[in-house]
Amino acid sequence: MSLLVVGSVALDTVTTPFGEARETLGGSACYFSTAASFFSDVQLVAVIGEDFPPEYVSFLQERKIDLSGLQTSAGQTFRWTGRYNYNLNEAQTLDTQLNVFETFKPQLSERHRQAQYVFLANIDPELQLEVLQQVEKPLLVACDTMNFWIESKRDALIKTLGHVDILIINEAEVRQLADEPNLVKAAHIVRGFGPQTLVVKRGEYGVLMFSPHAIFAAPAYPLEAVFDPTGAGDTFAGGFFGYLAATRNLDEACLRRATVFGSVMASFTVEKFSLDRLRGLEMSEIQDRYHHLLAMTEFSMPD
Amino acid sequence: MSLLVVGSVALDTVTTPFGEARETLGGSACYFSTAASFFSDVQLVAVIGEDFPPEYVSFLQERKIDLSGLQTSAGQTFRWTGRYNYNLNEAQTLDTQLNVFETFKPQLSERHRQAQYVFLANIDPELQLEVLQQVEKPLLVACDTMNFWIESKRDALIKTLGHVDILIINEAEVRQLADEPNLVKAAHIVRGFGPQTLVVKRGEYGVLMFSPHAIFAAPAYPLEAVFDPTGAGDTFAGGFFGYLAATRNLDEACLRRATVFGSVMASFTVEKFSLDRLRGLEMSEIQDRYHHLLAMTEFSMPD
Repeated sequence: MSLLVVGSVALDTVTTPFGEARETLGGSACYFSTAASFFSDVQLVAVIGEDFPPEYVSFLQERKIDLSGLQTSAGQTFRWTGRYNYNLNEAQTLDTQLNVFETFKPQLSERHRQAQYVFLANIDPELQLEVLQQVEKPLLVACDTMNFWIESKRDALIKTLGHVDILIINEAEVRQLADEPNLVKAAHIVRGFGPQTLVVKRGEYGVLMFSPHAIFAAPAYPLEAVFDPTGAGDTFAGGFFGYLAATRNLDEACLRRATVFGSVMASFTVEKFSLDRLRGLEMSEIQDRYHHLLAMTEFSMPD
Repeated sequence: MSLLVVGSVALDTVTTPFGEARETLGGSACYFSTAASFFSDVQLVAVIGEDFPPEYVSFLQERKIDLSGLQTSAGQTFRWTGRYNYNLNEAQTLDTQLNVFETFKPQLSERHRQAQYVFLANIDPELQLEVLQQVEKPLLVACDTMNFWIESKRDALIKTLGHVDILIINEAEVRQLADEPNLVKAAHIVRGFGPQTLVVKRGEYGVLMFSPHAIFAAPAYPLEAVFDPTGAGDTFAGGFFGYLAATRNLDEACLRRATVFGSVMASFTVEKFSLDRLRGLEMSEIQDRYHHLLAMTEFSMPD
């Protein structure tokens, strides 16, 4: 089943303690669609400028991502420049240039309006809703957001959430959105805004999923070398939602497996700059880490 | 099998956003031994002053803890005063009065020297080793420590760790002790100091256990109301080590169950001030939360 994602395609310049990458492929929709493409067909809706390197288009094409919704506008591609310090916990944004992204108003094609699985990556919540309203009969809608929108467009965001089934956001953002420091209470409040399922990303601590009937805790895959955390959250979302679209099943067991596949995909992304680690990644490597996470979490009842 | 613990007994004054408790029962050895007493016989080795309230002695007696090693010295009991802000993440120490603890030099009784399970709670690493060397044939030795000793008595601490099987400490302390920000690498370095098994406490994110052959991740029990985090780590250690002493088994499955029991015990402690929540706690409540953690972490291989 095809999965439509709308979000950003960017040229990222990232500095970590281990090196620097200049104008590499980035953006929420790129990380998402690349990760999702390991599980499902993907339709990418985004905008690039005339300066966008053709080799990056080729990379997305090789992943068999439908790029008919990737429009090229006059001007420069969206650019983000960031830096991580030694503990790699939080990106410091040094520069953001919206460029062609500033006037991005996607019009879905007739085919894209038929999408059943829709992921609204981290963009203006008004734009998220505009895109969603063009989809005729979405079967499952998920979205991401960030502190910037929670602060500046809270009402629009809450309106969008009323149309969303699954919200995938960071722990600090759940607390901020709910205005509640206790995560369990905050999750309850945020689910009251609309999303039946809330997937809380906790970085190196893994993921907590609050579904209608349960809480599921998945650890992050333990890595000896985290190289560049950029895109980990979007990659998680891509693995998670890509798996759901592929299985066409939304029961608790399936949501849990999707969460673990999301964690696995994110664990690869952070091992190299940009999407470099996903290039040439084999399904057997994905399965190995899935097995490892299963072994890492198993315990039994006492005798 | 009896379990011997040496550590502090304190009178704690704690302020949280939800209230204040003055001169309540606290100290690493109290939290540890009370939690362990749900699983195993416990011998407590510690010191109190002449001002120690008799009702606190009665509480420990009701838990059937062997208090023959609890010496009363001339002077005041160890006191700690701390405060938590709204996010409850980290205690701010406002005052520490060592009092009788300053000259504490425990001499184990003939019976206590026969202990097979020994827990060295968070005290001066030189004192930890002095106590351990009085035990004739310890079967299993675990210890805790803190940033203060890592900074001020690093060499003594590393010497003590050479005699320890299981180290139970906080995440930040593992990184500090190893001088390595990556937790997986840091765990490897710290296990090189002696402890075959390293149990890393991550507060609301749960526990990572690095045993000789595997990594085990256990989530924290999700609570809607954390009231006072004081003693959570010592309670974890008590549940963990108490279960190990009770089962006399050290295989991976048993270490994992011990980790989960530790998490469960800690989840109760933080629901009230001091040890109030453990007073009257029923084994059925412990088992319920164990079941819940099992249900929270289960997932399966994809079809």
